[in-house]
Amino acid sequence: MNYPSKLIENAVEEIAKLPGIGKKSALRMTLHLLKRDERQTLALAEALINVRTKIQHCKQCFNISDSDFCNICTSPKRDPAILIVVEDTRDVLAIENTAQFRGLYHVLGGVISPLEGIGPSDLKIEALLQRIADKKDTEDEIKEVILGLSPTMEGDTTAFYITKRLKLLGLKITTIARGIPIGGNLEYADEITLGRSIVSRVSYE
Amino acid sequence: MNYPSKLIENAVEEIAKLPGIGKKSALRMTLHLLKRDERQTLALAEALINVRTKIQHCKQCFNISDSDFCNICTSPKRDPAILIVVEDTRDVLAIENTAQFRGLYHVLGGVISPLEGIGPSDLKIEALLQRIADKKDTEDEIKEVILGLSPTMEGDTTAFYITKRLKLLGLKITTIARGIPIGGNLEYADEITLGRSIVSRVSYE
Repeated sequence: MNYPSKLIENAVEEIAKLPGIGKKSALRMTLHLLKRDERQTLALAEALINVRTKIQHCKQCFNISDSDFCNICTSPKRDPAILIVVEDTRDVLAIENTAQFRGLYHVLGGVISPLEGIGPSDLKIEALLQRIADKKDTEDEIKEVILGLSPTMEGDTTAFYITKRLKLLGLKITTIARGIPIGGNLEYADEITLGRSIVSRVSYE
Repeated sequence: MNYPSKLIENAVEEIAKLPGIGKKSALRMTLHLLKRDERQTLALAEALINVRTKIQHCKQCFNISDSDFCNICTSPKRDPAILIVVEDTRDVLAIENTAQFRGLYHVLGGVISPLEGIGPSDLKIEALLQRIADKKDTEDEIKEVILGLSPTMEGDTTAFYITKRLKLLGLKITTIARGIPIGGNLEYADEITLGRSIVSRVSYE
């Protein structure tokens, strides 16, 4: 496209680098900002710079945090005996929204993906082992580790690797249930999900 | 949603003010930026600030421009006798992409919309009359004004108002053709478009 201005072209190109945004949407956003008060654009730019440069990670669970330790890790209402291992902050938010989990988190910061060059050492797996060892024989001892990873190739690989590392520590290792989603229709479920949900059926209560 | 950090919340809220972006997409973008190099975020913020604070408008057609007069107004290849009146820069881009128009533009900066409190004085209508008067009896005299406004209530109101103001100046006033879109299916056209396309039928060539 022939932009009327280099400044517009530059803004469109930077916005279009965001996930899910094409050049047409980026142009729409740029022209929208031009119509609005200058303060809105400055506030947006400042918020982006601040979030990128000032953000911290919790020193215990590696979730995003405004301080050294996050709200969840420091909350007295959470049960430190149960730990759920997740890929990133989005998963923490998704699980928190269910209000079904009262334990603590451990955010890996990704999953093992040879294609993208991400190996175990790029993730917070050693930190997980260290965390379990540190808490052993204290009142915060971790008794159960839930693998809260997506049932994808990368998620399963990561879960397998972590299980192998944790096995000797003698704690309970569980994984989130896989199967037909609540409200899902059997006939539209993919064969692998349906097949596995039959193999790993549970007793009806 | 319960964000793990005020910085994230702030960024999400500012991004979600953009058109077509909800809080979920905004969060996805924020977390994406956090995973990428800091330079990407800084480049984005800088592009936004630059586009908003440094942008200029062409002094003749009011299109967005990097200099006092835009590329189109200063091009010797364009025909200054034909002027198309459009709502905003997006329309200029859309028309330029067709490569069917070799005249000049006049960007109103909006359309008359009583609901949004936009009246004729908020638009570049007086500037249009002035422009036509200034060029009169010069070699750049404007002979035809095409109303290139969207066939919406606001677009039609604006076209009607401009026509009333231009009528006495004795130049040709035309409007872009309305009808069934090329490739469109008669049975799916709305009744008003189909009805009008029959009333204002053209001779078959």
